Amino acid sequence: MRFSKFFTKTKRQIPSDEKTPGAKFLVKAGFVSKLASGLYNLLPLGLMSLKKIKKTIGIELGKAGVCEILTPILHPVQLWKESKRFYEVGDELWKIKNPRGEDFVLAMTAEEVVSEIARNHIQSYKDLPIILNQFQTKIRNEMRSRGGLLRVKEFIMQDAYSFDKDEKGLDKSHDKIFEAYKRIFDIFDLKAIPVEADVGAMGGSDSYEFMVKSPSGEDKIVLCEKCGYAANLEKAECFISTQVTRAKKEEKEKVKTPRMITVEEVAEYLKTPEDRVLKTMIYKIKGGKKLVMIVIRGDLSVNQKKLEKTLGSKGAPFGGKEVKMASEKEIEAADLVPGFVSPVGLDNKAIKVIADTSVKLITNFVAGANVRDYHFKNANLGDFKPDIWADLGQVRQGDRCKKCGAKLKIEKAIEVGHTFKLGTKYSESMKVNFTDADGKEKPIWMGCYGIGLGRALAAIAEENFDENGLIWPASVAPFQVYLINISDLPKAKKIVEAVYAELVEADFEVLYDDRDLSVGVKFADCDLIGVPVRVVVSQKTIIKNSVEIKMRDSKKTSLVKISDLAKELKKL
Amino acid sequence: MRFSKFFTKTKRQIPSDEKTPGAKFLVKAGFVSKLASGLYNLLPLGLMSLKKIKKTIGIELGKAGVCEILTPILHPVQLWKESKRFYEVGDELWKIKNPRGEDFVLAMTAEEVVSEIARNHIQSYKDLPIILNQFQTKIRNEMRSRGGLLRVKEFIMQDAYSFDKDEKGLDKSHDKIFEAYKRIFDIFDLKAIPVEADVGAMGGSDSYEFMVKSPSGEDKIVLCEKCGYAANLEKAECFISTQVTRAKKEEKEKVKTPRMITVEEVAEYLKTPEDRVLKTMIYKIKGGKKLVMIVIRGDLSVNQKKLEKTLGSKGAPFGGKEVKMASEKEIEAADLVPGFVSPVGLDNKAIKVIADTSVKLITNFVAGANVRDYHFKNANLGDFKPDIWADLGQVRQGDRCKKCGAKLKIEKAIEVGHTFKLGTKYSESMKVNFTDADGKEKPIWMGCYGIGLGRALAAIAEENFDENGLIWPASVAPFQVYLINISDLPKAKKIVEAVYAELVEADFEVLYDDRDLSVGVKFADCDLIGVPVRVVVSQKTIIKNSVEIKMRDSKKTSLVKISDLAKELKKL
Repeated sequence: MRFSKFFTKTKRQIPSDEKTPGAKFLVKAGFVSKLASGLYNLLPLGLMSLKKIKKTIGIELGKAGVCEILTPILHPVQLWKESKRFYEVGDELWKIKNPRGEDFVLAMTAEEVVSEIARNHIQSYKDLPIILNQFQTKIRNEMRSRGGLLRVKEFIMQDAYSFDKDEKGLDKSHDKIFEAYKRIFDIFDLKAIPVEADVGAMGGSDSYEFMVKSPSGEDKIVLCEKCGYAANLEKAECFISTQVTRAKKEEKEKVKTPRMITVEEVAEYLKTPEDRVLKTMIYKIKGGKKLVMIVIRGDLSVNQKKLEKTLGSKGAPFGGKEVKMASEKEIEAADLVPGFVSPVGLDNKAIKVIADTSVKLITNFVAGANVRDYHFKNANLGDFKPDIWADLGQVRQGDRCKKCGAKLKIEKAIEVGHTFKLGTKYSESMKVNFTDADGKEKPIWMGCYGIGLGRALAAIAEENFDENGLIWPASVAPFQVYLINISDLPKAKKIVEAVYAELVEADFEVLYDDRDLSVGVKFADCDLIGVPVRVVVSQKTIIKNSVEIKMRDSKKTSLVKISDLAKELKKL
Repeated sequence: MRFSKFFTKTKRQIPSDEKTPGAKFLVKAGFVSKLASGLYNLLPLGLMSLKKIKKTIGIELGKAGVCEILTPILHPVQLWKESKRFYEVGDELWKIKNPRGEDFVLAMTAEEVVSEIARNHIQSYKDLPIILNQFQTKIRNEMRSRGGLLRVKEFIMQDAYSFDKDEKGLDKSHDKIFEAYKRIFDIFDLKAIPVEADVGAMGGSDSYEFMVKSPSGEDKIVLCEKCGYAANLEKAECFISTQVTRAKKEEKEKVKTPRMITVEEVAEYLKTPEDRVLKTMIYKIKGGKKLVMIVIRGDLSVNQKKLEKTLGSKGAPFGGKEVKMASEKEIEAADLVPGFVSPVGLDNKAIKVIADTSVKLITNFVAGANVRDYHFKNANLGDFKPDIWADLGQVRQGDRCKKCGAKLKIEKAIEVGHTFKLGTKYSESMKVNFTDADGKEKPIWMGCYGIGLGRALAAIAEENFDENGLIWPASVAPFQVYLINISDLPKAKKIVEAVYAELVEADFEVLYDDRDLSVGVKFADCDLIGVPVRVVVSQKTIIKNSVEIKMRDSKKTSLVKISDLAKELKKL
């Protein structure tokens, strides 16, 4: 490709509205341009790299035996009502209507549509297993767009769906894709760590995220460097250590604690360690009026995802699972005293109490007295009865690994892939059944698997740059070779044209910078765009019938005979 | 591909909700499945053919020098307000909101977004010409979905946009794409006729549609077989012949015509030819309350597109251009007598009169008297004064060609491609300017060019079938070879596997029907799916170290030595 004919301009300025280095360089180098918050145009360079990502994913999933289909972005709302996700998913799901009053949702994922295809196709166990895959645009009503392509309203997703006759089959299909994902991220030079993850709105039993450690990431993962335990912070568990001995229960005592509200303040005022104060919080269930009281050991904090999972689980009839902290007004309206609430001496019986398991481990602790400016000392478990016990604690840097006891690390990370063992969640609600060898009709075991193509591109950019620009791995680079002539000699022009023709002929993807611009600009653009190999024709190289080559990720240059160039480049 | 591992099932029944043969076969053969009205899933076979269509289009447009980009489907509403299309396009444009109250439209085309990209990129005449292209999903709020993939709510479109510094440049860019489109449809074996078309909501000056004559088509085209004149019926003009001599004007006379309302009834009752009756219609401007009166010679009918174009043109201040026939109630509310309205003796001065040019050619005609059960005889042009003269007439089968006078034919057709010379419509409203060599800032000349991929697939299906199923041209067939073994000999199984391996190795796309089904089903599916070459291994062929080959579009079979098979197939 001649740069003079190529729809690309690099920018002089670093875009101020991009926060992460990868996003800044993707815009500056002309890979993408921002259309609006969370909406990007893929310009020729960006689209070329995205196509390489797509191709690699397609090949590796092909090896896992997937069949490719393409389903619409407009989904009839009925299917989402069948699966119940219409009611379960929050604002992220974009619900739309046409002037005739027909309801649709925009695809945020395609479990429902693919289930509809499967139930029309699959009759017998002989039709199983099958894995369907597509590359299709997903639209989400994303309010927190950030980091260029990392979190957007619209993106192309590889989404695969597996169908098996039993759990063992699902495990096998899951493994196939899981292994394909590992190969894919290896090809992209991404150190993607599979971590245990929360199933969230997708539902099902197990879920894994492929996480790339990155300061630009907005996810947090918990890692044990000793035994390899890895989980999303939302899902992570740890060993709950307690310094508190199982001391003899002492007499409960009401003490004055004027204006002492936070655990820290109370602990300091009463000269008690924070892990012997009961932390109490009031949450409000979204969409309803109910309040719930959460208690946890004072040194720990509540993981909202775990809490919402507890609220949403069967046998937890709270009328909803999304929660937010209740306001002072809402707390007062329930006849409670903000800052001094606790389950000990709680009068309002309508409020359910959910206790973190850490509370089981403490005795003679401090708890609010439900009276302004008073706490209890030496409160104990016998003084109240939680409605539910649950694991609600957020893992902290340095907490002990549940599996091996080593210290856990928390790292920022970018999620680049996600797998879900959905089990029979969708097949039961949507009646995706098959007739087994025993003649009985059974629900199909499903899994789903996704990689966001734009986010993969962004993650690779966030991991591969220096002060001058991007440094693409060869598997994702839009071009393999950047060709520049820095000599004014008429002969040089002829030679660079010949080199260009030869490399194109030899199937190299060459960006030949034939623009009428200074050498400095060309060298800078070559580094900024991040093409792996730079080939320069100069007065000096011509004398030796050579060109100078330099890898983007190295400072070393070397001379290569023009006659050997194609061969040398193939080696690289 | 082994059929046993391939996600495809053909249907026994012809789907009853598909009306055209191509659509019936696409569903029956398992290329697509219907998700809802106007929404289709592309199943593996369909997606494979669609990808071939996409690849061919990409290659041919690449030769025309386009640069490929990808823009979002969600468009910020501001851009559509800038271009005014937000207000001009009807219900087809899907306007959506998110819970935060932000407005978007779903891409029905991408002139606005591409203009936004261009105005950020293009500064100087040196940046021109440029043609951008994309393959992207379009979503339209289509109320009249029909014919399988022919008219749908969502489809992948190749949409290209050209940018030039002047009209000559636009003509050149338009020619490049026009020629590429001709090559593309040739490769698809589609006899696509370029016809003059209405610019519609897209705007601009000239427009051409590539039309494939087909009984499944919903468009109508006017063709002159003598001089080659070809136009969409919406746009077509013809020579207006008149048998009426310029007779001496006679005295106007009011005559009783009890309950005679239609032109036909009046003509018969008064023993006058229909082409000497004035046809008068009352239309209502959509979105407003205004009525307009349209008059045309009694034997002709009004072309609504032409009418709407007239209403929308500059200097026609009717407050809107979309119209529908007014109801009796609305006509009465304007103090008019339904069935007897005419411009002759019209009292309501608020009603504008638009007259078709055919009215200029008649004298001593019959017109309504604006009184129940009365018409005028011997009315003449002097008896009323139209506000506007316009060409509003619909061309009829057998009308005379405006260019050469030969008889015109009207044919049903499918539109498979569309080009528009947009001129400066978008660049002026959206300020897409460049600095010319003379230092002056000027608006860019734009063109746009589209092929709907699914509709192309559907059109090819509508043109290529017999009673047994589809007959794909090789350029679009999902597979090139359908391989069947009809022998039970263990040796045959070995041979067919070896043939399969060899053909795959030689890069043929082979569908090997290894299913545990009867020979009859396999032969039927082979024909239904429409793979170009059928290769059969049988007891008979084995003896001769051969296989039997048969082309889908022929009844002839022939034996080919297995050792020559790859070579023979390459020839085909």
